[in-house]
Amino acid sequence: MIIARSIKKIREVILPLKQQGITIGFVPTMGALHEGHLSLIKKARIQTQFLVVSIFVNPIQFGPREDFKVYPRRLSRDKKLLRQAGVDLLFYPSASQMYKQDFSTYVEETTLSHVLCGLSRPGHFRGVTTVVAKLFNIVTPDISYFGQKDYQQAQIIKRMVADLNFNIKIKVLPIVRDKDGLALSSRNSYLDKISRQQALCLYRALQRAKALIASGERDAVRIKKNIRLFMRKFSLAKIDYVEIVDAETLREVKVVKKKVVIALAVFIKGVRLIDNMLVDMKKGRFI
Amino acid sequence: MIIARSIKKIREVILPLKQQGITIGFVPTMGALHEGHLSLIKKARIQTQFLVVSIFVNPIQFGPREDFKVYPRRLSRDKKLLRQAGVDLLFYPSASQMYKQDFSTYVEETTLSHVLCGLSRPGHFRGVTTVVAKLFNIVTPDISYFGQKDYQQAQIIKRMVADLNFNIKIKVLPIVRDKDGLALSSRNSYLDKISRQQALCLYRALQRAKALIASGERDAVRIKKNIRLFMRKFSLAKIDYVEIVDAETLREVKVVKKKVVIALAVFIKGVRLIDNMLVDMKKGRFI
Repeated sequence: MIIARSIKKIREVILPLKQQGITIGFVPTMGALHEGHLSLIKKARIQTQFLVVSIFVNPIQFGPREDFKVYPRRLSRDKKLLRQAGVDLLFYPSASQMYKQDFSTYVEETTLSHVLCGLSRPGHFRGVTTVVAKLFNIVTPDISYFGQKDYQQAQIIKRMVADLNFNIKIKVLPIVRDKDGLALSSRNSYLDKISRQQALCLYRALQRAKALIASGERDAVRIKKNIRLFMRKFSLAKIDYVEIVDAETLREVKVVKKKVVIALAVFIKGVRLIDNMLVDMKKGRFI
Repeated sequence: MIIARSIKKIREVILPLKQQGITIGFVPTMGALHEGHLSLIKKARIQTQFLVVSIFVNPIQFGPREDFKVYPRRLSRDKKLLRQAGVDLLFYPSASQMYKQDFSTYVEETTLSHVLCGLSRPGHFRGVTTVVAKLFNIVTPDISYFGQKDYQQAQIIKRMVADLNFNIKIKVLPIVRDKDGLALSSRNSYLDKISRQQALCLYRALQRAKALIASGERDAVRIKKNIRLFMRKFSLAKIDYVEIVDAETLREVKVVKKKVVIALAVFIKGVRLIDNMLVDMKKGRFI
């Protein structure tokens, strides 16, 4: 596995590959890798010829009161996992390599970014789209992989790619969960034993919504109310949002039909966790 | 000359060229071509192997009270000029090809954009950086050419390229002027005979500033005051701004030293004209 810390080096590796028509796969991450990341890497390993993973804890997507400083960094463990997964190149830049002192250009999606997590984390998605645009220009992938856990992020990235004409295919892969249902997240490492139990409220609430819809409920307001009531059983859970939105536009829906996403954000003792379920009414599928 | 109206078509042409390592030159324009554009095209023709010119009057860089609708369109004349200049590909997209109905992603430079023309034309540079980022992703040039007439624009594009890691070299070429000194601009076609005469105030003011500096004046405030006084002779000229700024940061300077730009914007009977002069004190050059 090649490890590139500079943009110059990664360009030197990638450019000749592009000229040979070799397909480049790309999985951008913030490290502290778990099976969710690895599921993306496995798929990319199959679908593309040269596989690049980046590890960069991107300062500009964290708010001033968020967890940038304490976000888990586990580089040597991550490297081992990436080698085992057959990754060809790890891009692991410093913050100063990515952001010069006079940095002043941002990429901002202005519609999908202003709902759900966009409301509780102002500036977050601007930080995400900016760093992903940069990484796309550095890595020049043919296909890039994102997890459905960050459903809104994936939709925003897709929109950015379409709007700014990046010649890149975006693939979004299913959420990977622990045995008991908790969606994998690097932030799960913040949870103590009790919080870890309480964190199950997200998955259980989604399962409850699924049961309601399966039994014929279509009223989004009633489903959301039911979820909020259910969450009260979890004394440490502080709801950030419970929303049912159109899967494409992310606009709130009143009726569950076509394709919707049930999206949740909850604080457990100050740790912010998200989860979601894609409901495809036409195919009768819950993903 | 190939004429591509769709993004799909231009990609089909460009991709095999890139794989052969052929260098792509790119001159983005809004059409109504004049010798200023042609100077960029001539240089690009020499320095690169495959030369792309785009003509697109970009709606999102015009303000609601600006001249988008009446901006000169002269396609058949432009095509002829481009063929004569040996251009390989003209990209001439429709507005709907460039902006889908749900378009919502913008590229915004946030420092250099907020002075000079950025103050009188809010949103203008956001429109410029957005469309140029799109065109860069569509054309994937090695070198792209801009005119010094739009000095601020060129600086903003350079910053965007550095910040977002576009692998593109930006070249900025000197202002081309009419015999009497008026900087060429597609907007000069708006000027009637009297306005055309009055429009000389910009060039003459720059010449006056040059003479002052050559005679030892270094005080930026005094030079600007002198220019404003001089402009009073031109009864139809309404000053938008007269500024002397650092050539890199575009921040106002008090003393003329190192590299500064004298930048002017003037309305002549509602037609907004700009001009500038780069003053390199180290080399004693006025460009």
